[in-house]
Amino acid sequence: MSSEKREYAPINPPERILMAPGPCNLHPAVQRAAIAPLMGHMDPVLFQIMDDTVDLLRYAFQTENGLTLVFPGTGGAGMSGSFMNVVEPGDRVVVGVGGVFAGRMVDVASRLGADVKVVETPWGTAVDPEAMRQAIRQHQPKVVAVVHGETSTGVEQPLAEIGQIAHEHGALYLVDTVATLGGVDVPVDKLDIDVCYSGSQKCLGAPPGLAPVTFSERAVEVMRNRKTKTLDWYLDASMLEKYWNKERVYHHTAPVLMIYTLREALRIVYEEGLEARFTRHRRCAEALVAGLQAMGLKLFADPAVRLVSVTSVVVPEGVDDGKVRAGLLNEYGIEIAGGLGAYRGKMWRIGVMGYSAQPKNILLLLAALETMLRRQGFKVPDGAGVAAAEMVLG
Amino acid sequence: MSSEKREYAPINPPERILMAPGPCNLHPAVQRAAIAPLMGHMDPVLFQIMDDTVDLLRYAFQTENGLTLVFPGTGGAGMSGSFMNVVEPGDRVVVGVGGVFAGRMVDVASRLGADVKVVETPWGTAVDPEAMRQAIRQHQPKVVAVVHGETSTGVEQPLAEIGQIAHEHGALYLVDTVATLGGVDVPVDKLDIDVCYSGSQKCLGAPPGLAPVTFSERAVEVMRNRKTKTLDWYLDASMLEKYWNKERVYHHTAPVLMIYTLREALRIVYEEGLEARFTRHRRCAEALVAGLQAMGLKLFADPAVRLVSVTSVVVPEGVDDGKVRAGLLNEYGIEIAGGLGAYRGKMWRIGVMGYSAQPKNILLLLAALETMLRRQGFKVPDGAGVAAAEMVLG
Repeated sequence: MSSEKREYAPINPPERILMAPGPCNLHPAVQRAAIAPLMGHMDPVLFQIMDDTVDLLRYAFQTENGLTLVFPGTGGAGMSGSFMNVVEPGDRVVVGVGGVFAGRMVDVASRLGADVKVVETPWGTAVDPEAMRQAIRQHQPKVVAVVHGETSTGVEQPLAEIGQIAHEHGALYLVDTVATLGGVDVPVDKLDIDVCYSGSQKCLGAPPGLAPVTFSERAVEVMRNRKTKTLDWYLDASMLEKYWNKERVYHHTAPVLMIYTLREALRIVYEEGLEARFTRHRRCAEALVAGLQAMGLKLFADPAVRLVSVTSVVVPEGVDDGKVRAGLLNEYGIEIAGGLGAYRGKMWRIGVMGYSAQPKNILLLLAALETMLRRQGFKVPDGAGVAAAEMVLG
Repeated sequence: MSSEKREYAPINPPERILMAPGPCNLHPAVQRAAIAPLMGHMDPVLFQIMDDTVDLLRYAFQTENGLTLVFPGTGGAGMSGSFMNVVEPGDRVVVGVGGVFAGRMVDVASRLGADVKVVETPWGTAVDPEAMRQAIRQHQPKVVAVVHGETSTGVEQPLAEIGQIAHEHGALYLVDTVATLGGVDVPVDKLDIDVCYSGSQKCLGAPPGLAPVTFSERAVEVMRNRKTKTLDWYLDASMLEKYWNKERVYHHTAPVLMIYTLREALRIVYEEGLEARFTRHRRCAEALVAGLQAMGLKLFADPAVRLVSVTSVVVPEGVDDGKVRAGLLNEYGIEIAGGLGAYRGKMWRIGVMGYSAQPKNILLLLAALETMLRRQGFKVPDGAGVAAAEMVLG
């Protein structure tokens, strides 16, 4: 510590249009919730807000599951916590992997002592149910896991068939819906998903920091019959449950402001209605796709399984990824994301999520992107992107 | 889901005076930070805010430690993450236990596969360094752990001697400062603490949701030489480090709003200055103690090791804990906490922390408590509590 006093100004972040794969912009009602008076984690008024949150989560997950709660961490805690509560050391797990987030599942489950078998698919494609069937038949796993919206590739994994196969072989079906819940259809009960987790900051439209999760009766049964405690005390659902249900047994000091914002974001989801919300997301994504293609850009993901909430774009030959993204951010305040892993510098990932999924944002992004591309010598027909998007938006 | 649409009103929490052992009330500047425009977790402007946060944490921890960062969870994640990163399955750990939070350390470390040895002390007393010396000599642990401010009992554990003993025997010294950092002196480098974690929502004065931590070079060395990965991917400090340092490798979607509020809370700590802050906390706690004693109430903790940030009070015979606390909450908006474990219904725990540590709150609490006690037939000399507190406050 030097003895002279450094000056720290109050933070003053610039306004951003958030179009990376999360977080997204906040609805004004969600922002207001962030400055509602703070309460303690054992306040009866907070308990009511928590009960509302659980009710509204059941609506978003389309489930009647009793055990529905919130892990006190980001989507990554959702993944860790979901595996940790149903997996014990030595258990076998089959994961379908076609991107970074499913790859992370392999790391997460392996650390927990699971024997993980991987079914790979090239980036940009969905995992093949037949390949999953073979692996499940061969390995007879306790858990079968996939990622619904793989944001590293922009692929939406079809869920129904793999779940059926998992259950035919007596396995639990664990699905990551971090990038889809609240923006893309996730009918948990209809699909018979056993463990389904998400993140607060994507299509649900709350700030990052919480990970909702819901467990089927089948999953609860597995958890009740564990031989060992979960390896991490912090994400033990049997303890979290006693805080989130009527017992109200203190576990951790809940992130109260985050719960406020999630509850309000879920209220907005409920008031808009899931169907209307899915339509809004789809319409914006379709406009974006039309615009990008009209500008001569190539999309990355297999069109048959293109993810609504994240569109992946190939950075054209000769165009500098970093300069384009810095230009968008610094000149227009628009954030989009670059590629992950081997696709660093070679891919853009554009989020159409939550409150950010608005026609005005799509048009502005397309217009600004056109400017940036032209600056780098990539020829774009004048206004082609915006015109094509407008055609879709009508 | 029933088909009729339920109504959900926007949340509208009442104003509270938070005097439980955290969370505490928020400074207006911290509240403003909670509605600053949201940014993405890879935004260069956020990286600057994160750098400030680390600098300011070094100030609060009084350390030059390189590896200083924030676990993306509450104080409980701080405890889990701190043990997880230095402990591997089979490692021996000695924990000094005199309350709920040190007891939790035993659970946390045991789940991680550690061989945990406990040195117990009765609730209300501090762990005896000689008992720790014996256990450390006998068990030759890799880690020696204590809780600085045991909020379940209101005891401040003296830190210097136990740390010395730990180091004489080559062990790492791990200290929980969730209830003290920013309100009670925690000179990490001077005390040579190897792993020191805290929570955002107590004396630091931010909302709950983050757990700052700092690791000594000795601890970093142990982490670099691990044979196994941390059991939970989410709290792996080697990955968190690459996001918090200049490499900026994406790990999780950081809880951006929470980081804003922590950075602002730390700025307030810095501007007030640690010494002034300790004095303010001490002065408020002394006034509270004087007032409670003048009202004829008995304090729980050994006076020699009474914690400044949390005062534990014995509920007098014949007084209904629940009625008193409900009255304070519902009639005056004041939250204090009850006892934990065996002391449920038998103890009050009053926090004097962060922005809540203000003379006006002490006087109001004493006045309101006097009313509640009298209502239950407990005789209090008129205005005795407030008068005694005013004597201290001067």
